[in-house]
This record gives sequence, C-alpha cells and structure tokens, in this order.
Amino acid sequence: MTRFGIIGGGLMGHGIAVALAQAGHHAGVFDHDPAVLAGLGARVEQALTRCAVPAHPVGAVRDRIVPVDSLAGLGKHAEVVIEAVSERLAIKHDVLAALEPHIAPDTPVWTNTSVLSISRIAKAMSYPQRLVGVHWWNPPYLIPLVEIAPGANTGSAHVAHAHDLLAALGKTTVRLHRDIPGFIGNRLQFALVREALYLLDEGVCEPETIDTVVRSSLGLRWTAVGPMENADYIGLDLTKAIIGSLAPALSTQTYDFPTLDRLLAQQRTGRPAGAGLLAWPAGRDREVAERLEAGIRHNLSR
Amino acid sequence: MTRFGIIGGGLMGHGIAVALAQAGHHAGVFDHDPAVLAGLGARVEQALTRCAVPAHPVGAVRDRIVPVDSLAGLGKHAEVVIEAVSERLAIKHDVLAALEPHIAPDTPVWTNTSVLSISRIAKAMSYPQRLVGVHWWNPPYLIPLVEIAPGANTGSAHVAHAHDLLAALGKTTVRLHRDIPGFIGNRLQFALVREALYLLDEGVCEPETIDTVVRSSLGLRWTAVGPMENADYIGLDLTKAIIGSLAPALSTQTYDFPTLDRLLAQQRTGRPAGAGLLAWPAGRDREVAERLEAGIRHNLSR
Repeated sequence: MTRFGIIGGGLMGHGIAVALAQAGHHAGVFDHDPAVLAGLGARVEQALTRCAVPAHPVGAVRDRIVPVDSLAGLGKHAEVVIEAVSERLAIKHDVLAALEPHIAPDTPVWTNTSVLSISRIAKAMSYPQRLVGVHWWNPPYLIPLVEIAPGANTGSAHVAHAHDLLAALGKTTVRLHRDIPGFIGNRLQFALVREALYLLDEGVCEPETIDTVVRSSLGLRWTAVGPMENADYIGLDLTKAIIGSLAPALSTQTYDFPTLDRLLAQQRTGRPAGAGLLAWPAGRDREVAERLEAGIRHNLSR
Repeated sequence: MTRFGIIGGGLMGHGIAVALAQAGHHAGVFDHDPAVLAGLGARVEQALTRCAVPAHPVGAVRDRIVPVDSLAGLGKHAEVVIEAVSERLAIKHDVLAALEPHIAPDTPVWTNTSVLSISRIAKAMSYPQRLVGVHWWNPPYLIPLVEIAPGANTGSAHVAHAHDLLAALGKTTVRLHRDIPGFIGNRLQFALVREALYLLDEGVCEPETIDTVVRSSLGLRWTAVGPMENADYIGLDLTKAIIGSLAPALSTQTYDFPTLDRLLAQQRTGRPAGAGLLAWPAGRDREVAERLEAGIRHNLSR
C-alpha cells in the first residue's frame, strides 16, 4: 500500500484517485477550489457506481480516498505526489513551487500533462530530478494505458520507480525515450483530429460522418491490431505507396482551423454550451459518458 | 437477390464476395490471373470458417460465389459490377474499358479504391456517370463500414442506388459530398500513421510502443465515442487549445519517411519478408489475422 497525494480534484484527479484506491492504495486529494473538494465524494461515488467492479467493494475503495485541505497536509503523508491541475504552465509552476517545501527532497512527483514539456514544468522546482511525466487516459480507472516520459533532468531511478509502481497497479505502461509535447497518444490523436477538421473545412462530410467512419472501421481494427503491425501486415512497400500518395494531400494546418474557429466565434463550444460540432440536447452528455465506459469495459472483457 | 460481378479475386475481391453472399446475393468473380481464380474457393472457405456466423450456413453462402473465366461471362449476368483490382490507375483504366462492351450502358459499376480519384478512374469509361467510388474495409464481411463517393461526372441516381443497396445488405454506409483521395477513413488512418512514423524517426519510442498506445487507449475509446463527439464533450475551446499547441509540432512529412525508407532499402518489407517494423516469426501472420477478426467480432457483439 502506497500513500499518494493528488493535487487537483477535477476530472483527472478524482479519476486517478479511484484507479489508485481500486488497487488498494491510499489517495489524499487536495484542490485549491473548496467547491471542487466538497464535491469530490459525490464524483468518486458516481465513478464507482458506473464502473461497478465486483472485485472492488465500493465502500472500501471510497474510504481510501480522502480530501485534504492544504498542500502542507498533503505533503505530510504522501509517499508519491501526483500533480493533476489544469494544463497551464504558470499554474503547474505555482503548484509545484508551493508543494516542494512540504515534502522530502527525494519524494517522487508525477505531473499529468497532455501537451506541456516536462523539462519546462520542472523549471519551477528545486529538485527537478524527481519530476516524471505520467500521462493517464480518461477515465483513468478504466483505460489501461499510462504513458511515462522523462524531462531533461529527470533521474532514471525516478522513471523506473514510476514504471514499476504503475505496472504493479495493473496499468499498461509505456516509456518514452524522451519528452515530446503530447507524448505519443495525444500526438497520434490530434494528427487524426487535425485531418478530420480539414475534411469539414473542405466540405467533404459532416462531423457525424467522421465519427461513423472511425467507430465502424478504424476503431474496430485498432483495438485488435495496431497501426505498425498493420503496416507490416499489408507490407511496407504498399504502406509506402499509400502514404507517399496520400501524405502530400493531408492537412498541415497549424494555428487556423476554420470550422473550429467559426463555431467558437458563435459560442458553440460543444457539450458545455449545448451545441458544437454536434447538437447536445439534454441527456446527451450522460449518454456519451455511459456509452464510453460501457464500450471500454466490453472491449476489455475479452 | 442481386447478381453482382466482381473483377479481382484477391484480398478485397473474395472478401466482398463473401459479404455479398452472406446477405443472400450472388457473386460471379473474375480475375485475370488463373491462379487467383483457382484459389478462390479455398480463400472463401477459409473466410467462412473464420467468421463462422451461425445464421449463414457455410454451404449455401459458398454456393452463391462462382468463378467466371472472362469479362464477357461476368458482364452477361451481372446487375452490378464491382471493380476490385489493384490500386494502379492504368490497370483500373484497362479493366473498365475492357468491361464496358459487355454490359448495358446503365449497369452500375462500383470501383473499390483507397487512394485514387474516382473522376480520374472514370476517364477511361464511355459512360462515366455510372461509376461510383465504393470503398470497403478489410475484412469486408466483418467491418460494417462502406464509404461511398461520387466522381465529378457520377450520376446522383447511381450514388443513391449504391447507398440503398449497401444499406439493405446491412452495411454502415457513409456518403462523401465529393471525391477526395483516400476518402475519409484512409485519410484519417494515414494522418495517424504519418505521425507514428515521425515518432520513430525522432527516436521517441519503438514501433511496438505505438501499437500498445493505440490498442490500450485510443482504439478502446474510438469504438464507443468518435473524435468529433469527443471534441465537443471536452469542449471546443479546450480542443482548440490542445490542437493549437500540438499542431505546429506534428509531422508534415510528404515523400520522405526515413524509418520506412531505411527498412525498405534493407528489404525488410514486413510480413511477406519475415521482418519489418516488427519481427515476423512463423505463425505470426495467422495469429494477427485471427486476432483481428476475433477482436472485431467481440466488439460488434455488444
């Protein structure tokens, strides 16, 4: 049993706490926003009800997750600290600088980021060698993958420790040889999303069509056979012929995304606004969350 | 019951024949290579054994697929012709020009392509309005998706007919408003593959790691919730922040793919050569094919 301290009780923070508690660990959760901290129990309860893994009695799992009302309190008991605040460098810098006086110099600190550089996040720290990039996928208590990446100053023992601890939790871990923005998964994801947005910009199809294509073909294949094994399977000469033919025509957009920018200018920001690329009538948000979790569970049940 | 004529008995041709025969249709299959035609029955048998759908008695399905030894013979009975020869424009031109004298001017012709322009394929035809781009996914008898795209001269009645016939077969059809190389699915797929190859070029990880990431995170999510619904779900403002941050760093490679080019120079062409991005010891090819079909079937069983 390891005592984790989690900074940030939002979407990722509470989800990581559930993942850790299901594996028998203790998670103290701190959030700067008292309202988020007050709602922690309800969000944990909801996640536990939805995942409903019979092997993990809800009460026992819930009791291992406790709100903590200060970084000092969090630092006092944590053997490993997980920073899961929002994706803004200045906020991560402030939190990590405020944390360090409350923990021993060799206490591991994991930062959960999709897009920021680990080396840059570590610049605010007195002991940057302890900072490891540990990227969980949502929902963390269901998605097996955790990506681990070192910053330029990260100690290799800290990387190995994170890997061993996460593997012991039953997670599927991958290690990057070096830090790169977006790690592996989000780079792959947003390369595909960039092309999807380009197809909308070009008037080739509607957003719903993109989702139908992914759900009815690529998604079905990629849970069983990854893109590299598939490239070998069809043959690298054919792969080269196809990519050599298609790549010059694929999107290389960087900052301007006309369809996205137009929707944002209209305040159509998606689920939170009730409309975005798709319509979001009442109840769709819950239906999507439940469909996602049910789909993942079914997939993993093989 | 519709009588289809399929030109090309290879991977896609025999798979499409199985998909059609399972739905009660008749498929005459022609191939210029007598060896391919002679092996048709065995490949159909293998596909039927692997998919083993109890609702489709193997014998009845098999009997609806017959080899045909000439384009004249194929044209005599076909109500719809499906061209599924290899992805080379000159070959498709030759086949379609040779076919047309043997069919009525209004017989629909569907061309199965991943990367070629429908308008350009149609240039060899006397009646280009009948040519519809109909892209099946492998294996065609398991993957629900079929993408339908018009060329510049395709008649809208021919597009609607293809859509209705495929939907009646139980396929999940999507229609593109216009022809674009790679249609939707292969553009999305190769946008992701391009980024994967770039990560290898950059020394971020091994090919196996790419597949672990896709199979343990993105694939699991994308069978349940597509990328557009997910963008709305997390919010388009957050989506814009992430893609605006990542896109400038994503691969924009066009013709040179160093890792791929190096392997090809070493004759490491993948499965056919016994080595590629991954090692291909004896038996791996069969294991991959079985894993793919089992994974897809499990996914669709919900």
